[in-house]
Amino acid sequence: MEGIYTPNITPIDERGRVDEDQLCAYVDWLIERGVHGLYPNGSTGEFTRFTAEERRRIIQVLTEHVGDRAPILAGAAEANVRETIDACETYGAMGVKAVAIVAPFYYKIGPQAVFQYFKDIADHVSVDVTLYNIPLFASPIDVPTVRRLALECPRIVGIKDSSGDLPHMMRMISAVRPQRPEFAFLTGWDAALAPMLMVGCNGGTNATSGVVPELTRAIFEASQRGQWDRAMQLQYRLLPLFDAMIGQPEFPEGFRRGALARGWNLGISRQPLSPEQIQEAHKTQEQLAQILSELGQWLPELVPAMTPAQNTTSLESAATDDFIEQVVREVMQQLGR
Amino acid sequence: MEGIYTPNITPIDERGRVDEDQLCAYVDWLIERGVHGLYPNGSTGEFTRFTAEERRRIIQVLTEHVGDRAPILAGAAEANVRETIDACETYGAMGVKAVAIVAPFYYKIGPQAVFQYFKDIADHVSVDVTLYNIPLFASPIDVPTVRRLALECPRIVGIKDSSGDLPHMMRMISAVRPQRPEFAFLTGWDAALAPMLMVGCNGGTNATSGVVPELTRAIFEASQRGQWDRAMQLQYRLLPLFDAMIGQPEFPEGFRRGALARGWNLGISRQPLSPEQIQEAHKTQEQLAQILSELGQWLPELVPAMTPAQNTTSLESAATDDFIEQVVREVMQQLGR
Amino acid sequence: MEGIYTPNITPIDERGRVDEDQLCAYVDWLIERGVHGLYPNGSTGEFTRFTAEERRRIIQVLTEHVGDRAPILAGAAEANVRETIDACETYGAMGVKAVAIVAPFYYKIGPQAVFQYFKDIADHVSVDVTLYNIPLFASPIDVPTVRRLALECPRIVGIKDSSGDLPHMMRMISAVRPQRPEFAFLTGWDAALAPMLMVGCNGGTNATSGVVPELTRAIFEASQRGQWDRAMQLQYRLLPLFDAMIGQPEFPEGFRRGALARGWNLGISRQPLSPEQIQEAHKTQEQLAQILSELGQWLPELVPAMTPAQNTTSLESAATDDFIEQVVREVMQQLGR
Amino acid sequence: MEGIYTPNITPIDERGRVDEDQLCAYVDWLIERGVHGLYPNGSTGEFTRFTAEERRRIIQVLTEHVGDRAPILAGAAEANVRETIDACETYGAMGVKAVAIVAPFYYKIGPQAVFQYFKDIADHVSVDVTLYNIPLFASPIDVPTVRRLALECPRIVGIKDSSGDLPHMMRMISAVRPQRPEFAFLTGWDAALAPMLMVGCNGGTNATSGVVPELTRAIFEASQRGQWDRAMQLQYRLLPLFDAMIGQPEFPEGFRRGALARGWNLGISRQPLSPEQIQEAHKTQEQLAQILSELGQWLPELVPAMTPAQNTTSLESAATDDFIEQVVREVMQQLGR
Repeated sequence: MEGIYTPNITPIDERGRVDEDQLCAYVDWLIERGVHGLYPNGSTGEFTRFTAEERRRIIQVLTEHVGDRAPILAGAAEANVRETIDACETYGAMGVKAVAIVAPFYYKIGPQAVFQYFKDIADHVSVDVTLYNIPLFASPIDVPTVRRLALECPRIVGIKDSSGDLPHMMRMISAVRPQRPEFAFLTGWDAALAPMLMVGCNGGTNATSGVVPELTRAIFEASQRGQWDRAMQLQYRLLPLFDAMIGQPEFPEGFRRGALARGWNLGISRQPLSPEQIQEAHKTQEQLAQILSELGQWLPELVPAMTPAQNTTSLESAATDDFIEQVVREVMQQLGR
Repeated sequence: MEGIYTPNITPIDERGRVDEDQLCAYVDWLIERGVHGLYPNGSTGEFTRFTAEERRRIIQVLTEHVGDRAPILAGAAEANVRETIDACETYGAMGVKAVAIVAPFYYKIGPQAVFQYFKDIADHVSVDVTLYNIPLFASPIDVPTVRRLALECPRIVGIKDSSGDLPHMMRMISAVRPQRPEFAFLTGWDAALAPMLMVGCNGGTNATSGVVPELTRAIFEASQRGQWDRAMQLQYRLLPLFDAMIGQPEFPEGFRRGALARGWNLGISRQPLSPEQIQEAHKTQEQLAQILSELGQWLPELVPAMTPAQNTTSLESAATDDFIEQVVREVMQQLGR
Repeated sequence: MEGIYTPNITPIDERGRVDEDQLCAYVDWLIERGVHGLYPNGSTGEFTRFTAEERRRIIQVLTEHVGDRAPILAGAAEANVRETIDACETYGAMGVKAVAIVAPFYYKIGPQAVFQYFKDIADHVSVDVTLYNIPLFASPIDVPTVRRLALECPRIVGIKDSSGDLPHMMRMISAVRPQRPEFAFLTGWDAALAPMLMVGCNGGTNATSGVVPELTRAIFEASQRGQWDRAMQLQYRLLPLFDAMIGQPEFPEGFRRGALARGWNLGISRQPLSPEQIQEAHKTQEQLAQILSELGQWLPELVPAMTPAQNTTSLESAATDDFIEQVVREVMQQLGR
Repeated sequence: MEGIYTPNITPIDERGRVDEDQLCAYVDWLIERGVHGLYPNGSTGEFTRFTAEERRRIIQVLTEHVGDRAPILAGAAEANVRETIDACETYGAMGVKAVAIVAPFYYKIGPQAVFQYFKDIADHVSVDVTLYNIPLFASPIDVPTVRRLALECPRIVGIKDSSGDLPHMMRMISAVRPQRPEFAFLTGWDAALAPMLMVGCNGGTNATSGVVPELTRAIFEASQRGQWDRAMQLQYRLLPLFDAMIGQPEFPEGFRRGALARGWNLGISRQPLSPEQIQEAHKTQEQLAQILSELGQWLPELVPAMTPAQNTTSLESAATDDFIEQVVREVMQQLGR
């Protein structure tokens, strides 16, 4: 596994359902603009906010639509070991390159239980597995645990690490690469993409690549050629974009707004925002449009057709109340049956 | 809502399924020993480790089995607002007294989004809703948010707070009770049960009540009679039990071991433990048996028939590998179809 | 050691020096209003912002002025073991009842080094020593360490704990009291004073007692008589006062403003505040005056002569620039010599 | 300011005093081995564990001894603004290149008070000032505060940042360098030295340079020549050394042991260690000797005369009890006078 995988946003239609047409169109654009692979059902894809059936449907739609054009790393964490194994095998049969499994969350579990969880999965699946370490949201996977899993489980072929901690990445690489040279290290912390590549990462799964795939690709290619000055110059351009999107106002709404500033209306998150937050998100969007405009002037070859934002009002007009009313009606109908 | 609700462990059979017979027998014992209500699908019930269907089935089984013998507070958090509303209405139709909804987790969201989440739910359900604040695991619900929700949403009738922060509880009570005197405050932090009752809590949802329901009941009754010296004396007895169970070796395994020390084999958690952790859990169990034995001598009327632990070896003998093999076989069969 | 000790603010005059006259007048008032003892050179006294000489002078002034009227618990933490022993012996010779020593700060050290630090001190002083646990600011002193120190060091006679964690206090009491029944437990977290007394604390060292000594005394006395309903009613009155002062805008400025609202101009902290923060502090003061006024109407016997705030403008008029200019002149003169 | 400054350990003699002869000999070795400057009274120098007089004496000894051979960045944080200004002016008169001032510690103060603190100092000193951000130990200095201080205070000429957060460093550089191109950014997190230099740092103040000055110098020089592959290769060699020293068993004891493994007996820290910790430190030392031996074989030109450890037993034999007894005797004599 190598290069930039996009943890793609999940498009939502006006009735709150996964917008499969928009999903296909959006990933076509991502592939065309140069991302190396896709990572659906990741944190940016809001996997926890979809049902188990929806998550499977997303992978099915993508594998069928994308085919051989780009490898797919499918987020496969489900409620427990059994359900996760089930999802892994299903996705493997669908043709994904590998699955990514986040450490157990909600409960904060320790290193031994993290190890046992991944081992129980890895020993019983027939698809390649990537660990996913995101200590901000889930139980951390520490260096000795990564090492043990790498040495004991041939099915585990890499790790996505979103800690953003550079020495931690170096410690993992030192601990694993000598004995598993093909084991892949992917960084999920866009703010340090170029330095992470310099310390030896094989690539990244970066939410910003869903907004400026041209820029993340350019950073990766500069790093491949050893053009570190250029890689760092580009990284300094990526950083304010990332900072503007990462927390505004609730992750990953900033990235939805970034996509919108590129012309992609991917709908509203299933996590409702307050009216003040919707205003804040709108400001973020305007700020992003400004940053993107400057970026386009600076690097026209990178962002050749910076599409002006369209349909920007539609996000605001999605009347939450109407949506909820409709949900309730449907639920009541189901219960009536 | 008042008194001690048991966030009951979910019994698991040897094939990893919910053990419905044992669930019914266990809650019968709890009710007989004096808990005021049940709180299935809580954190102690490991709600995140079951599928949406399993969670519904658990509530169905309990409502049908328990009937009017004890009120049920049903954990109803699902993947998103829509699914949660659906669960709320379903559980309401099943006859639960109220639902409890934990703040969104995995993503750490801010107060405005927490408010909007609960408001969108509360405005569209026909069952009473209890907020569930557990900042260790989920996005925190701060005092101003509790106040706004209490004032704007009549359907929200209480909060379960597991922060263990006594002044925080007092701040919530000060902020809400004058205008919503019937709003219920339940503490989920057993280590401070008696002091929490002294500052005005209406009761608790306490995992220890699944192991020593006689003791938590006695604390509640002493508090009702204003016998604070006795309440504190009992609290000092509860504390080492809670401490021995709370983190050993992974929550809620300590409470499973506590139940086992009372004679209730509720099976093994779906979170796999390492061999070292299973040994550690066994030590915890022996330690608990010792504490319970001392407690029984001190308070024979409280723990009249401290059942000796039985079948304690069965937990160890549940061969994880066999279980996993079987899971895989079943999954493969499903995929084959 | 028993009762409420006031960790008194250190009055500062307009030239930035310790205002010894105001210090004496202020502690006279505190003693008259019912505090049981004084705790100079505590966190509220901003011990780190004074020089070693100033800290010694403060204790000298207080011991000479107070005499037998109230016991003094003197903060004695200095740069290292040797300097701290020196301060302990000096303060012991001055007649303090005991010294209080905070765990090492800046560096976060572990339990073994914390133990060794206190043991090296306790084994070589001839004055009674109180441990001071304030994990927000200094290395934490955990329960096993408190127990070991209590069992191995007869000179250590108590602990002041400002963690605010009620079960932690109960764990300490459980671990120490059976073998050292006279070992004193004092709480430094005013927000939980009454509950802490209910679980068995001997008293408190509470910054609010420097502003409403009548109220903290009343809570203590109610607790002594087992009047827990009254203690809790008073505690609910203390909480908003504490909350208004604890962080506004920088600790302990809120308590300086509280004292000012009682008529005591204790000068400005040595930690400079921004103009916006000075405004914020002024608002806190007005808010406190309002709370105190309501308190005085509710409990006239408690706060018999709620002195109106005087000289409130003087804090604002202390021109920082003038002060600094003067400092620099003096330093330059010293260097010239 | 540019290059690697050593935050040098403060040598302690067997009576617990600053060992001035050893200090001079040690810094001679550091300068000879290629460090660009010295940073006494830093965190590695345990500035908080010395008295104000001792801190001044250390700077006096070093400035007199070192002369023009290397610039000195003198840690100058004292108890408050006034004392700190005093130290700054004193050190300026002694000829230091600049002072470094850590943000206020113990109390955790907010950005406005941090700003005001540094501004009050910077506006009234005649020596160049370097900010020192170490959020692990002291109040953090956030990016907007660094920017405001850089723009408003010409006396502030740089920042030492020990957060180890690479994107944070990039944000600071982005915020300041365009308008203050000469403003120096020094990293204090050795684990990321080479990447920090790649993002644009001017150098570092690195505790490991007190143990392997040859290696940190080589990283700096490789970075100056744009030899990033070599810089990273060396960084991967530095990391395990840093990791072995950073927390073992209490900072900065690991670095004292590292120096000892190079032949420099710098005595024992003033923070007493438990017997178990002294054993642990001894193991760290043996581990360091092994790492250094491998490093010397790999890079003989870097570590030309890896001196075998000498006098390693003396650290253990420094009888703490004897030392304390002596302290007490001296204190008693002083009090007797």
